[in-house]
Amino acid sequence: MSDRLIIFDTTLRDGEQSPGASMTREEKLRIAKQLEKMRVDVIEAGFPAASNGDFEAVRAIAGTVRDATICALSRSNDRDISRAAEALEPSDNKRLHIFIATSALHMEKKLRMTPEQVQSSSRWRSGLRANSPTMSSSRPRMAAAPMSTLCRVLEGVIKEGATTINIADTVGYAVPERFAELIRTLRTRIPNSDKAVWSVHCHNDLGMAVANSLAGVMAGARQVECTVNGLGERAGNTSLEEIVMAVKTRRDFYKLDVGIDTSQIVPASRLVSGITGFVVQPNKAVVGANAFAHASGIHQDGVLKQRDTYEIMRAEDVGWTTNKIVLGKLSGRTAFKKRLQEIGIELESESAVNEAFQRFKDLADRKVDIFDEDLHALVSEQAHGEAAPDHFRLVSMTQQSASGERPRATVVLSVGGQELTSEGTGSGPVDAVLRAIEERTCSGAEMTLYSVNAISGGTEAQGEVTVRLAKGGRVVNGVGADPDIVLASAKAYLSAVNKLHEPEKVSAQGGI
Amino acid sequence: MSDRLIIFDTTLRDGEQSPGASMTREEKLRIAKQLEKMRVDVIEAGFPAASNGDFEAVRAIAGTVRDATICALSRSNDRDISRAAEALEPSDNKRLHIFIATSALHMEKKLRMTPEQVQSSSRWRSGLRANSPTMSSSRPRMAAAPMSTLCRVLEGVIKEGATTINIADTVGYAVPERFAELIRTLRTRIPNSDKAVWSVHCHNDLGMAVANSLAGVMAGARQVECTVNGLGERAGNTSLEEIVMAVKTRRDFYKLDVGIDTSQIVPASRLVSGITGFVVQPNKAVVGANAFAHASGIHQDGVLKQRDTYEIMRAEDVGWTTNKIVLGKLSGRTAFKKRLQEIGIELESESAVNEAFQRFKDLADRKVDIFDEDLHALVSEQAHGEAAPDHFRLVSMTQQSASGERPRATVVLSVGGQELTSEGTGSGPVDAVLRAIEERTCSGAEMTLYSVNAISGGTEAQGEVTVRLAKGGRVVNGVGADPDIVLASAKAYLSAVNKLHEPEKVSAQGGI
Repeated sequence: MSDRLIIFDTTLRDGEQSPGASMTREEKLRIAKQLEKMRVDVIEAGFPAASNGDFEAVRAIAGTVRDATICALSRSNDRDISRAAEALEPSDNKRLHIFIATSALHMEKKLRMTPEQVQSSSRWRSGLRANSPTMSSSRPRMAAAPMSTLCRVLEGVIKEGATTINIADTVGYAVPERFAELIRTLRTRIPNSDKAVWSVHCHNDLGMAVANSLAGVMAGARQVECTVNGLGERAGNTSLEEIVMAVKTRRDFYKLDVGIDTSQIVPASRLVSGITGFVVQPNKAVVGANAFAHASGIHQDGVLKQRDTYEIMRAEDVGWTTNKIVLGKLSGRTAFKKRLQEIGIELESESAVNEAFQRFKDLADRKVDIFDEDLHALVSEQAHGEAAPDHFRLVSMTQQSASGERPRATVVLSVGGQELTSEGTGSGPVDAVLRAIEERTCSGAEMTLYSVNAISGGTEAQGEVTVRLAKGGRVVNGVGADPDIVLASAKAYLSAVNKLHEPEKVSAQGGI
Repeated sequence: MSDRLIIFDTTLRDGEQSPGASMTREEKLRIAKQLEKMRVDVIEAGFPAASNGDFEAVRAIAGTVRDATICALSRSNDRDISRAAEALEPSDNKRLHIFIATSALHMEKKLRMTPEQVQSSSRWRSGLRANSPTMSSSRPRMAAAPMSTLCRVLEGVIKEGATTINIADTVGYAVPERFAELIRTLRTRIPNSDKAVWSVHCHNDLGMAVANSLAGVMAGARQVECTVNGLGERAGNTSLEEIVMAVKTRRDFYKLDVGIDTSQIVPASRLVSGITGFVVQPNKAVVGANAFAHASGIHQDGVLKQRDTYEIMRAEDVGWTTNKIVLGKLSGRTAFKKRLQEIGIELESESAVNEAFQRFKDLADRKVDIFDEDLHALVSEQAHGEAAPDHFRLVSMTQQSASGERPRATVVLSVGGQELTSEGTGSGPVDAVLRAIEERTCSGAEMTLYSVNAISGGTEAQGEVTVRLAKGGRVVNGVGADPDIVLASAKAYLSAVNKLHEPEKVSAQGGI
């Protein structure tokens, strides 16, 4: 048994399944580079058979990231597996993650297959490293797969060449004691269990994903599937940052090594929350704004008398550093380009650098200090525009409000090249501007979320606005950043409307 | 051993210790009423010796809440205990929670006492039900109290009449296996351990507060200390909602009853996040906006085929219901008053009702549908103004921005009765307005947090803005709500500035 814990990040696959968290190819690539920098062992980059967008993203990541294993999800059918293999082709270090349900309820109601069919339909071919998850193995009562079936399927799968066996608690129903027992029983009862690495994939519906994963580790699992910020459907997946810091901080107990560069944890957290628009609550472990703050007089006193009293981790170790001013109005093109490279942003063409630099100059005219977060936001907007030229573009905007009067706004939009003016009034300036835009774009969508995140310090911080629109079963997020919150809102709304205007890319999604 | 788990809520005491989460007496009273409605067993209302504000809040809650035990925190000295007893006096059902550190590191470095002094200084008098926590019992290595010392102190404490023994993992360092072992050992080794209820108090620094608490429960603890939304210092305390739903959902495993009315969980979560300005992230278990949402095609298919496949809890059971339009422009004074009563808001005087109704009419002129959340926000603002008449008041505001021009704002403030005009420009309209206000109020404070929370659905949702100001070691939060986000920001900023203008109320804080 290895004394190293493999950190398998699925932010880009299972994390992206969270409603509204879908990302563009460029956004996924930037996150993948940050994951590589953080030294995660395996990056699950997507589910290539689900859509062309996912295929392209996995292929781009497989062709770019060198220091991590790239993994793709696949159902156990020939078409899915070929698509995944094709997407992974550019990587020298790849892995296939084939999934199938084994719980009685799933087999009967969802797959409409018998256990024998499940076993024989599983294409556990070797060649690629295979990672085989079993969905919902910890489900309650009648829903759970009989242990004998599960053992039989998994024994066969290992014999066929699967090198990692992933056990999932898809619905977040497990408790640590039982989940550990499950892993221990499988490892004991399956004769060839030592030929595979055991992996755990937990969801956080009852707030126990981290504890369940670590209970699995204590029972012999050596891979944890997790996501940055615990992103994922419903209450999300196991948090990467919590798992890593628990294993590091309690090395005395877990006696395991992890390869993560923990100083990259907070930058990764910010990047993921910025791109997805999923805020991190202040009282979130490790990466929340308050995670390392002390307010109580008694605690402060304790901290002063001996720092050790109340600190089990150091903020610096996970990448919390004071926001450093990196650039300003007087920074030149070379300094700008150098800083982009330092924070892992590579723009493909000189014209892209020029455009970004122009945006930077515009921003620096309005905002004295430019932080790394500002650069990420600036490039995010540009990246989306490049990937698919926007149908609607904001040319200019004016708005005003006064006590006792209804706020009003005028926007000039470029619609397929033509400039059109539109006016709106609303309960506030943001409402007025969005109504003016909607008047002209006629998306007909329902706004299901509007959130604002300050992305750098000071009163003149940029606001990053996320707008979520829903229409006919489709959900899209638009993100816009600007020191002017009304303008950021307009950008976010237009970005979402433009996404709705593009043909839908999602055809199927993986579910573990 | 009882088969009932006691839910001890410390949102108002340990939750409030989170930097910036301090609440007014009126806000605490509203939360206490909601906790009573949710049927928590024990409400820890505050730490009366810490400040007059805390004393008043505990006394008000002790005089109002009838269906829950009211608890006050106290250090183990005569003055603290008398203050706590005095604050609890109006309640028929009260409890004293005396704390002292027992870890070697704490005793030596913080208290500068020997174990013998700790034991003899503990005033574990009966009369009031006593709850004695031991701080940091699960601390690492040399920091932990020797087991023999801990046993000796606790045995003495039970003999002196303590009816509940609370074991705290103050720094969130515990792992479930070890924490369970600690509780089990104490209960085995202390001869009179069966004379007390054992309680656990865990922090979430490594993401395991819920699992640690439940491990303690499996080892025989029958009280869990927790907070709504897991509010609390750093990564917060054990989440009430996760503990309750874990025990309810996995009743097959835990075999315990809880008395909570779970349909009040989401209303409680919203009330606490609204009052403190601490947002709940979308992927938070139970109370996050996405906690019950499904995006993946496969999962949706599964849900359709049989709802049971992916659902372990029902959204309705924890109080997620579609926002209901409760009032509108045409609603009269009677309907308004009735709805306030229904959601637990009681205004003390007819003039307060009149003022609230006027605010409601103003809001309904600008916002078509009024939700319960809007009413809470409306009353929150008013309640603060009543508690301490504001030094600075906003009379009117105008602002405008246009592409290519620097946003500008003019505010008219009433400063101690005199109307003064002030102008400002900024990187956005919010920045311009806040600068105009700062120009006149001269708080000199640093803005360390600016957050926006949409508090009711639709494009014309009210924005609830939280502004956190720090000055000379003091941290205050101001909250403002309005459909106009710029106006909400101005209200929030002024509210924070007014708090800074009041004399500081905090003198000491409890630390477990």
